[in-house]
Amino acid sequence: MTKYIFTNIIGSFVFDKDFKVVDKIEFKNLEEYNDKLKIEEKLSEKHSPTLITKQLINKKNKEILRKILAQFKDQQNFSNFYKQNIIITAKQLKESVNEDNFIVQTINNIEEIDKVANTLTKRLREWYELHCPEFSRSIESHEKFTELILNKSKKDLLKEVNLDPDNSIGADLKDKDIIPMINLANGIHKLYDLKKKHTKYLDDLMEKYCKNIKTIAGTLIAAKLIEHAKSLRSLAKMPSSTVQIIGAEKALFRHLKTNARPPKHGLIINHPLVTKSRPKTRGRTARHLANKIALAAKVDYNKGEFIADKLMKKLEKELK
Amino acid sequence: MTKYIFTNIIGSFVFDKDFKVVDKIEFKNLEEYNDKLKIEEKLSEKHSPTLITKQLINKKNKEILRKILAQFKDQQNFSNFYKQNIIITAKQLKESVNEDNFIVQTINNIEEIDKVANTLTKRLREWYELHCPEFSRSIESHEKFTELILNKSKKDLLKEVNLDPDNSIGADLKDKDIIPMINLANGIHKLYDLKKKHTKYLDDLMEKYCKNIKTIAGTLIAAKLIEHAKSLRSLAKMPSSTVQIIGAEKALFRHLKTNARPPKHGLIINHPLVTKSRPKTRGRTARHLANKIALAAKVDYNKGEFIADKLMKKLEKELK
Repeated sequence: MTKYIFTNIIGSFVFDKDFKVVDKIEFKNLEEYNDKLKIEEKLSEKHSPTLITKQLINKKNKEILRKILAQFKDQQNFSNFYKQNIIITAKQLKESVNEDNFIVQTINNIEEIDKVANTLTKRLREWYELHCPEFSRSIESHEKFTELILNKSKKDLLKEVNLDPDNSIGADLKDKDIIPMINLANGIHKLYDLKKKHTKYLDDLMEKYCKNIKTIAGTLIAAKLIEHAKSLRSLAKMPSSTVQIIGAEKALFRHLKTNARPPKHGLIINHPLVTKSRPKTRGRTARHLANKIALAAKVDYNKGEFIADKLMKKLEKELK
Repeated sequence: MTKYIFTNIIGSFVFDKDFKVVDKIEFKNLEEYNDKLKIEEKLSEKHSPTLITKQLINKKNKEILRKILAQFKDQQNFSNFYKQNIIITAKQLKESVNEDNFIVQTINNIEEIDKVANTLTKRLREWYELHCPEFSRSIESHEKFTELILNKSKKDLLKEVNLDPDNSIGADLKDKDIIPMINLANGIHKLYDLKKKHTKYLDDLMEKYCKNIKTIAGTLIAAKLIEHAKSLRSLAKMPSSTVQIIGAEKALFRHLKTNARPPKHGLIINHPLVTKSRPKTRGRTARHLANKIALAAKVDYNKGEFIADKLMKKLEKELK
């Protein structure tokens, strides 16, 4: 007599030829669900040799499948399905968190910190210029500016940049009016510090996770590439021509819509090899570099060996 | 015999009827320039009674003024003018820094810190949700969220919001991957701290500088009003109808250009009296409040007495 076996997330079921359940093992928890193959096997043995399994049902006859599925339509099953689904999804969610997520969060945060520190330093400059306008104009680096404000008095600052410490056109302020500026400088300094810690973390993370891309592209560019691609996996799947223009989407679409030239490089324009090559050869450099990065991504994703040093040597030869 | 006396920033000069310089006292430094009236007086006495002073020259005869000014056209005078002008402008700049500047810088910075802390906390939430998504959704306040992250473990956090500490769908992360989040939380916490310090500073500053507006409008709104007006002086000059809609410029111009309704309130919409009044009476409340603020600004600018308590009582009566 023909029987059918059918397994889904709530259990393994045996049906007779009239599609009545004649035997079943329900999964009480996630462990049992993960053992579903074994459990199905057990039931199969018990009811063999008249048993038709799910795979066979699917292929042989959709009508049978439809009738079996109809058996799961009652309310009790629904709530079982619902519960079990939640549990499985939660577990998948939990397990889906990986290095890609950390890299994306960290590199995004580093960029935000950069922006934020910029905004605040601009304010600090404007504010401090009430007190000492000459100094602000002599120091271009925001970070160095903040550092110096934090540690030196107005006179020392002016000496630092070789200006007359007794002849500032800035107002002589009381301490109580200078302290808020120092507090702000301190806050900005803490942000730069945070950025350094994040960069170190990212560095360590990528050293283990994707050493090849990291070595070729540099930590920050490699992280941005992964961030744009959303994961190492999808970066590894990209052709090198895509890697070359990641981050230049605007220029790419302008090219596709109008007659504008296609972009020669996206994110990798910040790579030292591209930066230092002459404008004319920049496109070529970007192409070769993207080629190596794409290759490195594939190796990293498949947990291959460290080949970045060889790739770099090859790249340098190609660029000569 | 007629002589003319003429004083400018480089000195005091006596001309004869042919407009030759017959006597002069040049100002060697800023102190002498500041004493210009006395010096002119001294020269006047020496050459009286035939002397005509600058004021009289101006009114009597423009031709004479033109001839005198022509005497200052040689190169030597130019460089004197230039030097003296620089010195005077620098001094005026130096002296122009006052409480208005501090208030504008501080309130702007407070708003920037708010924005920046918001951006960073959004990132912190997204990042921390990899680890513990349930918690982030249970705490609405960004500041409290950051504070708790900083001080408690995942399990304690879940207990804090009455959730099952053993059943999170977030990933169980290693310490090394949690530390960057804590570092970020720490950075944000420092920014909130900075904001508190700034607010305290602003409070003290305005207590002395403009206690009346501060009492009526509250520190932050009062500071924003001054910031929009650019100074206490210009705020004091504004009619109360302008004070009422400061900060609603967009709505005002929309009203002027189209047939849209005029704005009922600008910045002062955040004042507790306006916030808590019913929508229908909000315009009226704003009008009365703006009236008192405008009055308070005038009193503060003219260094008048503390009348804010009386104004507040009157306001409350009017609003009944």
